Amino acid sequence: MSREELTKIILPEEKIPKFWYNVQADMPNLPAPGLNPKTKKPLTPNDLTPIFPMSLIEQEVSTERFIEIPEKVREIYKQWRPSPLFRAHRLEKALDTPCRIYYKYEGVSPVGSHKLNSAVPQAYFNKEAGIKRLTTETGAGQWGTALSLACKMFDLACTVYMVRISFKQKPYRRVFMETYGAECLPSPSDRTEIGRKVLLEHPDTPGTLGIAISEAIEDAVQRDDTNYALGSVLNHVSLHQSIIGQEVKLQMEMVDDYPDVVIGCCGGGSNLAGIAFPFLPDKLQGKNVRLVAVEPAACPSLTKGTFAYDYCDVAGLTPLLKMYTLGSHFTPAGIHAGGLRYHGVSTLVSQLYHDGLLEAKAVKQKGVFEAAILFAQTEGIIPAPESSHAIRTAIDEAFRRQRRRKKQKYCLQS
Amino acid sequence: MSREELTKIILPEEKIPKFWYNVQADMPNLPAPGLNPKTKKPLTPNDLTPIFPMSLIEQEVSTERFIEIPEKVREIYKQWRPSPLFRAHRLEKALDTPCRIYYKYEGVSPVGSHKLNSAVPQAYFNKEAGIKRLTTETGAGQWGTALSLACKMFDLACTVYMVRISFKQKPYRRVFMETYGAECLPSPSDRTEIGRKVLLEHPDTPGTLGIAISEAIEDAVQRDDTNYALGSVLNHVSLHQSIIGQEVKLQMEMVDDYPDVVIGCCGGGSNLAGIAFPFLPDKLQGKNVRLVAVEPAACPSLTKGTFAYDYCDVAGLTPLLKMYTLGSHFTPAGIHAGGLRYHGVSTLVSQLYHDGLLEAKAVKQKGVFEAAILFAQTEGIIPAPESSHAIRTAIDEAFRRQRRRKKQKYCLQS
Repeated sequence: MSREELTKIILPEEKIPKFWYNVQADMPNLPAPGLNPKTKKPLTPNDLTPIFPMSLIEQEVSTERFIEIPEKVREIYKQWRPSPLFRAHRLEKALDTPCRIYYKYEGVSPVGSHKLNSAVPQAYFNKEAGIKRLTTETGAGQWGTALSLACKMFDLACTVYMVRISFKQKPYRRVFMETYGAECLPSPSDRTEIGRKVLLEHPDTPGTLGIAISEAIEDAVQRDDTNYALGSVLNHVSLHQSIIGQEVKLQMEMVDDYPDVVIGCCGGGSNLAGIAFPFLPDKLQGKNVRLVAVEPAACPSLTKGTFAYDYCDVAGLTPLLKMYTLGSHFTPAGIHAGGLRYHGVSTLVSQLYHDGLLEAKAVKQKGVFEAAILFAQTEGIIPAPESSHAIRTAIDEAFRRQRRRKKQKYCLQS
Repeated sequence: MSREELTKIILPEEKIPKFWYNVQADMPNLPAPGLNPKTKKPLTPNDLTPIFPMSLIEQEVSTERFIEIPEKVREIYKQWRPSPLFRAHRLEKALDTPCRIYYKYEGVSPVGSHKLNSAVPQAYFNKEAGIKRLTTETGAGQWGTALSLACKMFDLACTVYMVRISFKQKPYRRVFMETYGAECLPSPSDRTEIGRKVLLEHPDTPGTLGIAISEAIEDAVQRDDTNYALGSVLNHVSLHQSIIGQEVKLQMEMVDDYPDVVIGCCGGGSNLAGIAFPFLPDKLQGKNVRLVAVEPAACPSLTKGTFAYDYCDVAGLTPLLKMYTLGSHFTPAGIHAGGLRYHGVSTLVSQLYHDGLLEAKAVKQKGVFEAAILFAQTEGIIPAPESSHAIRTAIDEAFRRQRRRKKQKYCLQS
């Protein structure tokens, strides 16, 4: 069937990638090494063993191009993978654009987001290492939900520190996590020293991912049977999410097409990395493909931040990473895209942006929601506030190209 | 791949059925005719033209075995069809059962339920007939959401009367419908005469589907450009939902399996009809397959109702249908399975139950929720309260068979 007729492009199950793609194998400049928060010297694996299993630490620094996905993880992936790539025919018609717009739909996962792609291997590798319990942070709740389910699958206990503003905005999310057997606390909480300190100084704080990360790490380091899991920012998370973009490339091949622009929303960077990184080798080989990160104007880490060493959390418990950052004490407004309220960005995304291989745009909430409603009314799927940032930008690009009367293809991530 | 290895059974897109299956072609006894609510004489097509287009009225009484799905409807179906059939390996393991349990997952539709299968053709046929606006009722909100989206697809206005208890329990559902451009009112409302009357007599009523139907019909008959749409009970709705069971049969063939028991939750009957009716011809030809309807103990239409002529609504605006009913003034407790809070059952389901071709069970809310949590923690998908009735029964059947040490296969609908 031709690409003009197809709405849903489904990869045959046997073509689900068996390897994750590691962008570090292809980057012209690797990110600067993380620094030990106390000594300020380059990290050693031993600095990370109190909170991560060695297998994930190895993935963090690996420069192998392809890393095999364990059999057990692949078995679980099959419940929702391969995820569909949709051609947005009805949106295109509403925009009256000659551009071809595609979107990769990770909403078919049982938790409704892409986060399970990394939660499952993280739970798996921790289980293999003999760990009994994981702690984590969550913004909008997507990551916390995914890790709750992944922990249940591997019989691990799970505690989630959820940014307070999202905890209040989305009461059902707590129930979601509890249904999977996890514990979910609003952050800052009185469970940790850092939580109590923040509450004392700023009793009305909406919370931040930086605070929630501090709480989850403080909790994890105190127990030998407990590790910490991060849902974005780190290299191994981008690695796991690479399955998305690898599938997209195969799906676009099936309809004999290739994107001019690949767009993803960007908080910590895992969603963007997932769809965009597998296109980098083509770009480096001269293919004319743009990779675009979209962030909220209320939290413009890439477009307004500085490229410097900073902590991932508010208490300075994490390594210092060289990244675009608004400062680890930055508290963004309580916008609805809770998953994008993060002061920093993955070092991989940051380095690629710094090297001019990736673009960034900041968009405002009102325009994002208008785009979301148009998308819902045409494509039928109500997109998350986070994904809607990518949709807004795809629409803007289509309008811009139309003025230039040029056909373009967009691929965005929801 | 063998059925022991497969988790997700995906039908090739070209095998999506092109025809709906009409169970009326095969029933040993057709349901008694509907009666005009005023004259009490058998309905004529003209009795229904004030609220339905002729094409749907024809489907209502047709005894053709297969009715072609219009091209435009099939195009839209392809966004979420074929839906996956899952083998519940992890649930089976938790139950330590030798039984094979499969579930058909309609949650991949953009509105998250099977209701869109009928909403799309209903909107399509009304649009073809020149109608500009549809009114409807909704319990838990699934049908109202589906019709809101379907109306948006065909550029029809849409007003949804939502049972008050569900309107209160699920505030996000209203926003869901409004996002698709529909209007959603709590029922009883002050928009209609019947709504005002009920509010005056019972200001604290939780509402019922029977009241909401009366309001939607009263609204529809007053405007020439407006028709009414019903999300269950009627024959044409069961017809449209037959695509589910037809797909299931093809999917089970793909793994060389066949169910001993087919289970669906039952309110008005559309969910059950969708999965179960396509198995009836096999049963009539001697195949040993049980069809099981599961209803809430709080609203036991089949198991405790009487088989008699009754109204579909509280005000007596609808035709009288011969069905199992608790009486059109029955107000069930405000259980969470809002989609199953209906006093009657489809005449087709009722007749098949009466003729011993279909079984019925009533289950209590607490056991249903326990089953839902076990399902969520094993299969990862958090099921709707309605679908959880089928899950409870599948688990009970597996336990029962285990005591008899017999392998069985179950197919249930979520």
